[in-house]
Amino acid sequence: MSITKTFFKLKESKIFQTVVASVIITSSIIVGAGTYELDSALRQFILIADYAITIFFVVEILIRFFGEKKKINFFKDGWNIFDSIIVISSLIPTGAGTSIVVLRLLRLMRLLRIISLIPEMRFVIEALILSLRKSIYVLILIFILLYIYAVAGVILFEEIENSRFSHIGEALLALVQIMTLSSWETIMLPILDVYPSSWLFFISFVVLSSIIVLNLFVAILVDVVSEMRRDREKILSEKD
Amino acid sequence: MSITKTFFKLKESKIFQTVVASVIITSSIIVGAGTYELDSALRQFILIADYAITIFFVVEILIRFFGEKKKINFFKDGWNIFDSIIVISSLIPTGAGTSIVVLRLLRLMRLLRIISLIPEMRFVIEALILSLRKSIYVLILIFILLYIYAVAGVILFEEIENSRFSHIGEALLALVQIMTLSSWETIMLPILDVYPSSWLFFISFVVLSSIIVLNLFVAILVDVVSEMRRDREKILSEKD
Amino acid sequence: MSITKTFFKLKESKIFQTVVASVIITSSIIVGAGTYELDSALRQFILIADYAITIFFVVEILIRFFGEKKKINFFKDGWNIFDSIIVISSLIPTGAGTSIVVLRLLRLMRLLRIISLIPEMRFVIEALILSLRKSIYVLILIFILLYIYAVAGVILFEEIENSRFSHIGEALLALVQIMTLSSWETIMLPILDVYPSSWLFFISFVVLSSIIVLNLFVAILVDVVSEMRRDREKILSEKD
Amino acid sequence: MSITKTFFKLKESKIFQTVVASVIITSSIIVGAGTYELDSALRQFILIADYAITIFFVVEILIRFFGEKKKINFFKDGWNIFDSIIVISSLIPTGAGTSIVVLRLLRLMRLLRIISLIPEMRFVIEALILSLRKSIYVLILIFILLYIYAVAGVILFEEIENSRFSHIGEALLALVQIMTLSSWETIMLPILDVYPSSWLFFISFVVLSSIIVLNLFVAILVDVVSEMRRDREKILSEKD
Repeated sequence: MSITKTFFKLKESKIFQTVVASVIITSSIIVGAGTYELDSALRQFILIADYAITIFFVVEILIRFFGEKKKINFFKDGWNIFDSIIVISSLIPTGAGTSIVVLRLLRLMRLLRIISLIPEMRFVIEALILSLRKSIYVLILIFILLYIYAVAGVILFEEIENSRFSHIGEALLALVQIMTLSSWETIMLPILDVYPSSWLFFISFVVLSSIIVLNLFVAILVDVVSEMRRDREKILSEKD
Repeated sequence: MSITKTFFKLKESKIFQTVVASVIITSSIIVGAGTYELDSALRQFILIADYAITIFFVVEILIRFFGEKKKINFFKDGWNIFDSIIVISSLIPTGAGTSIVVLRLLRLMRLLRIISLIPEMRFVIEALILSLRKSIYVLILIFILLYIYAVAGVILFEEIENSRFSHIGEALLALVQIMTLSSWETIMLPILDVYPSSWLFFISFVVLSSIIVLNLFVAILVDVVSEMRRDREKILSEKD
Repeated sequence: MSITKTFFKLKESKIFQTVVASVIITSSIIVGAGTYELDSALRQFILIADYAITIFFVVEILIRFFGEKKKINFFKDGWNIFDSIIVISSLIPTGAGTSIVVLRLLRLMRLLRIISLIPEMRFVIEALILSLRKSIYVLILIFILLYIYAVAGVILFEEIENSRFSHIGEALLALVQIMTLSSWETIMLPILDVYPSSWLFFISFVVLSSIIVLNLFVAILVDVVSEMRRDREKILSEKD
Repeated sequence: MSITKTFFKLKESKIFQTVVASVIITSSIIVGAGTYELDSALRQFILIADYAITIFFVVEILIRFFGEKKKINFFKDGWNIFDSIIVISSLIPTGAGTSIVVLRLLRLMRLLRIISLIPEMRFVIEALILSLRKSIYVLILIFILLYIYAVAGVILFEEIENSRFSHIGEALLALVQIMTLSSWETIMLPILDVYPSSWLFFISFVVLSSIIVLNLFVAILVDVVSEMRRDREKILSEKD
């Protein structure tokens, strides 16, 4: 039996996947535990476990790579590339160039690999990306709305103290907050004291952004429903 | 007529169920009344009523148990077990081990029995649990998102005073608050003063969590609609 | 031509309905204008206009009553009773028993008559009431949830200062606020300082109430969609 | 080849549309850049670029106008009128009558032209307007609700200090805030201290407005779904 076949069987086996899932979860718990103050013995253990996990993941990716009959197919699957990037990025040595914080964040990202491991979760993410791609024009519309109101906000309210419209970046943040309807009156009320007609700016933004976000929601919903129906009809027509 | 038959008829009778419902509601009102300051006479009455209700519920469960033709079927219905646990748990005597507060909370839980009593409410709960079970992967995704952002938040913002990211538990609470879009800017703004690029952390979390929660919503909705259609088609095909 | 026929023709005429609509809107504007400080001449005018409008509405209801072929049918239509109550209640004389505030509120209510006047708005309200009636069990579930958490909240957090759980009424208000996800952390954080595990109480309530409200939403939505489909199928089957 | 044909070919060409889109985006970036403090050289450049863009847009509109076979058709398309208004309004000279702020806002509006340029975005906006027009009665209902509660709020709470119900305009703003469920308890709590039964006013408004907004949402959703189905059925029937 060739190495490719052995590795293929190995990577498709239930045990292999369970072990990988366990290591991924252990890895995340270790990164989480690292945020607490620990005594030096435990910290030493975590350091060693971390090395072991990093090596394990490299070996695992290699097994999956060499288990592929045609090596090029490995790179055709977006999830393999996703996994490889996560594993390789945590190999970067801590040194002058990279801070310890970045390294810890990269190791935390390994939890995302659980998504590529479970087919159902992969499906959830793929469906999500698909529906977002289809509603790209609504997303552009949201950005246009945000940009126009941000620049208009800066032009109109720049001079007001504590107005959260001192520059475009700050204004965008304030508008995203208003868009999520989270205590948006705290942004409006101080400005309303200076310009009594500024409610037009805020209420129009609240109404417009709510309608467009609602539209995004409906677009995604209708998309999913129609997708589902198409599948059902295909199944029905295949039955005939 | 055997005891089983008598009890079966009794437990299926409309009067029995109405009486049980009344006692459940009375029981809840009594627990509610107990939170107000009452004179000792009334408090005495409540104590006695409470004993009477506890005994009534034990008798009721026994009637329903002995009214079952096959005793094992009683335990096959999840709702019977649900009822039994609620009734038995309020039998625990107040003593050294259990505080009076726990006892009062357990008696309050008896109101939940109204759900198992009314078939329509049982259906609502069962549909709810079913739809949640089907969207288990979206729920796992939400937890992964929360965990990654919580640990990352602690790693990045631990040092900042009043940052609500001092440990993972606190960070998770802060993130759940952001997820519900409830005054999330109060968490972001103090951190933004220290790290001007921290908006990336918060805005990305707001966007991602909103999309995933929306996805959960759509999943449940589509599930209910497709369930409904299946029922309708079954009815139609039975007509033919 | 009999009086009934004359009145029937009158009440069904487009002009009559337009006049009534205009008077309703004028009436509401007058009540609104009354909230501003006005000079005595204008206030005098409003007083007279108010009398005129009240008389107009009485005459209008009488026309609609006597325009009905069978007088009993007038009371069979819920909207007629709705209109009559609004008109009659504003006839109550200001005196010792009724305050001027109540009278002004009753006159404000006359704007609601615009709903009964426009068939499309009547349809919106009827559809709304129907969908609420169908989801009565979800509404009961929401009330059970609120009651259990309110009593539990009082039992657990009564002693804490500024806890908004000092009695059941206050607790219910706090829980409705949490249910709407409106700055709910302002209720949780002070209690969290005293009882570090109280997040369980709040997070469980946020999750449960969100799911049940979502369920209510889905129930209404599915109901409307299935209603629509039934109508469409009826139309299709009538075509055959 | 006539001018009309040349212009028609030009305006329909991919290059023309890409150039126009680029100029629109450049124009918006320039207005945005103008909100930052710039040195005089850059500011001079922006001024010149602004003139150039204004001239470009006038030329572009003229090309699209003369490229139309029947000149009257140009005005039949709402999007052409939309574009013309935006372009012409930014031609208004700065002088005694118009402030520099208004001019900058008008130039900012040119970003909206990107919507009329991309057919998919035009479709999104048209679908949005259509669905809003269909739910006009729900919108009227929302306005009636707001007006009644605003006037009632002023009548009841006018006297209370810091009550945000001092006049109808302020009350409407407060009610819109409550409708968006954004920290609505900050409006209720101070009034609750004075009138303990005022929760009835606020809770009833929260419940009613939520239900009606939900209704608006469902109306739009059902409308989109039924629209989609009609399209699908038309396609199917054309196939037969």
